[in-house]
Amino acid sequence: MLQTLSWTGDSLRLLDQTKLPTRTEYLDITDEKQMWDAIKRLVVRGAPAIGVAAAFGAYLGVRDFDGDVHALMLRLSEVCDYLATSRPTAVNLFCALKRIQSVAEEGFPVAATPASPCLAQASQLQGRTTSNIKQRILDECLAMLDEDTAICRAIGKHGAELLRTISSKNSQNILTHCNAGSLATVAYGTALAPIYFGIEQGMRFHVYADETRPLLQGSRLTAYELRQNHVPVTVLCDSMAASLMSAGKIDACIVGTDRVAANGDVANKIGTLGVAIIAKHFSVPFFVAAPTSSIDLSLSTGREIPIEHRDAREVSHGFGSQTAPDQIEVFNPAFDVTPAELVTAIITEHGVVHPPYADSLRQVCLPDKNSETAKAQRARRKNC
Amino acid sequence: MLQTLSWTGDSLRLLDQTKLPTRTEYLDITDEKQMWDAIKRLVVRGAPAIGVAAAFGAYLGVRDFDGDVHALMLRLSEVCDYLATSRPTAVNLFCALKRIQSVAEEGFPVAATPASPCLAQASQLQGRTTSNIKQRILDECLAMLDEDTAICRAIGKHGAELLRTISSKNSQNILTHCNAGSLATVAYGTALAPIYFGIEQGMRFHVYADETRPLLQGSRLTAYELRQNHVPVTVLCDSMAASLMSAGKIDACIVGTDRVAANGDVANKIGTLGVAIIAKHFSVPFFVAAPTSSIDLSLSTGREIPIEHRDAREVSHGFGSQTAPDQIEVFNPAFDVTPAELVTAIITEHGVVHPPYADSLRQVCLPDKNSETAKAQRARRKNC
Repeated sequence: MLQTLSWTGDSLRLLDQTKLPTRTEYLDITDEKQMWDAIKRLVVRGAPAIGVAAAFGAYLGVRDFDGDVHALMLRLSEVCDYLATSRPTAVNLFCALKRIQSVAEEGFPVAATPASPCLAQASQLQGRTTSNIKQRILDECLAMLDEDTAICRAIGKHGAELLRTISSKNSQNILTHCNAGSLATVAYGTALAPIYFGIEQGMRFHVYADETRPLLQGSRLTAYELRQNHVPVTVLCDSMAASLMSAGKIDACIVGTDRVAANGDVANKIGTLGVAIIAKHFSVPFFVAAPTSSIDLSLSTGREIPIEHRDAREVSHGFGSQTAPDQIEVFNPAFDVTPAELVTAIITEHGVVHPPYADSLRQVCLPDKNSETAKAQRARRKNC
Repeated sequence: MLQTLSWTGDSLRLLDQTKLPTRTEYLDITDEKQMWDAIKRLVVRGAPAIGVAAAFGAYLGVRDFDGDVHALMLRLSEVCDYLATSRPTAVNLFCALKRIQSVAEEGFPVAATPASPCLAQASQLQGRTTSNIKQRILDECLAMLDEDTAICRAIGKHGAELLRTISSKNSQNILTHCNAGSLATVAYGTALAPIYFGIEQGMRFHVYADETRPLLQGSRLTAYELRQNHVPVTVLCDSMAASLMSAGKIDACIVGTDRVAANGDVANKIGTLGVAIIAKHFSVPFFVAAPTSSIDLSLSTGREIPIEHRDAREVSHGFGSQTAPDQIEVFNPAFDVTPAELVTAIITEHGVVHPPYADSLRQVCLPDKNSETAKAQRARRKNC
């Protein structure tokens, strides 16, 4: 199984995604500057993967620091501020850095700053040393690595079970859009996790990967990772999905998501809405794989999700050549919103969620308040 | 108005489409070899435009021929055979060459061949000379030029009237897919003719042009010609059309067609089916502009239309760089078939045709047998 990030014991090993799809190369990151550069240059990408990488960047930035506890905390703060500038809009990155700082500060009053060193010193007296703080940070990074993998595997398990119920075919054909695979997470991915998990359980799949204009994450990344993981894959232009579904060749669509609103509306890579409408037309199930961290109950509908519009040149000058007249006007939204009524089911790490989503999403996000899951969720959320 | 082909009195002037969308250059074609090369290299493209270009190629190939009538006819036959090899699958090209030969042979028994020169000579005695045969060929070429323009203008007229009925907005937003514009015909085009004609009549439009992967005819050609003709245009990736329609920004879709079956099923550039399904979902009218020459009553449904599958590299290596893993499997159909129930109306040169198409298409294709239209249609068809 392709590993996007892995800890070698001494460095964070990153699959260099700038070299895909033609070359498989790894970079061993040993300090925070290399990590900043790796995140900036998209060596590592995908919200969950960036978060974990940034956390390790923070650890690498203090690992060799030689000073007292207070100086270490200052250093950590500087490193985190620095890493936060690598991709200014990546929420997972900020959350991960905040989580690392919280862990390091545990036992310190929240207000421990240069302005109140006495408080910090008082805490230090409670037995904390630089080496146990460093160890605590590393442990948290490793926990984040495991946690991301566990969430993806759980999505994979529930998704594979769901796919088993929709068809008894010897091999299922699955259409996906963009890359919500292992390359966007530590391993397994979200939308592709049911495929990988299902194969481990003896199921068989052929994946049809929309190339996903304008940035071609489907042909560059999804096709690459499936092939590396020995899953049969066919690439098609986004405009060809209707033709495939019309011919009865697709058993189900599975996509990832950037954000799910409380009513089940789903924001995802531009083009997802078209896939969902076409799937509905041909009665093909349309599934969304969503870790509960991407479900935002504070948004009542998808209309509240802001849509980023990106540079015209991604469309007019994609991949080395100009393909539209000079200074042509371009419509280039990065995401679209698929309304809940087009979504057959949402696959989370806690199980499959069905319509009506207003109830079912709330249940999966706010389970029994005293459960271990709920506690872990609250712990993660307080950092975001 | 941009002219794709025009007769200068001495040469056929072609807009060099290999230079689009960045440069506007013309080539003056003066002999059949240059024409063969221009068709082969896609300097001129689009079925109607290729047909007219080939006819002029035949004329240019015999214009300076010095010999008797019989030798001229042999020469014409050689030139036509030669030109027919430029794009072996272009039906309009064969029809046009056959039409030129028929015109030249008028008065000659059909079997006038080297094997029966006496028959040819007998006809020659009926007053035919090389110069009046050459003139007749040129006249036919010019008639084809005018005829194509007239058909496109008539589609434009009927289409503009149709658009006037669907919205009273000051400016309408029209989505189109691929290029069925003036660049594929002598002028005006088919799908874009209602836009051009409407603007002549004081209507206003903003056209949204799907880029049309894999070959990007939308961004390279449609955006170029609309801009040259001062029509406001915005380019989008094919996957973004759903987002636009979802936002209520599109008043109607208009596309061209390669072939319409007797029941109204429409074959057109890959991606058209998706546009039609999405338009239906959002209750946006979906119109097809179709000269009656593209309506094939011999096909009962679209299932009988063969779909060409093209080279994988158009998808995997489409922009001057490799965008998918080595030797990846690719699904690359050139066309799809949109079922009649998704087509709001079909715009022909004889008027707008509504469902049920089985009746209305037959009426528009087989009008009163003694009408001038019917005679002209029969004359054209006997050459195909």
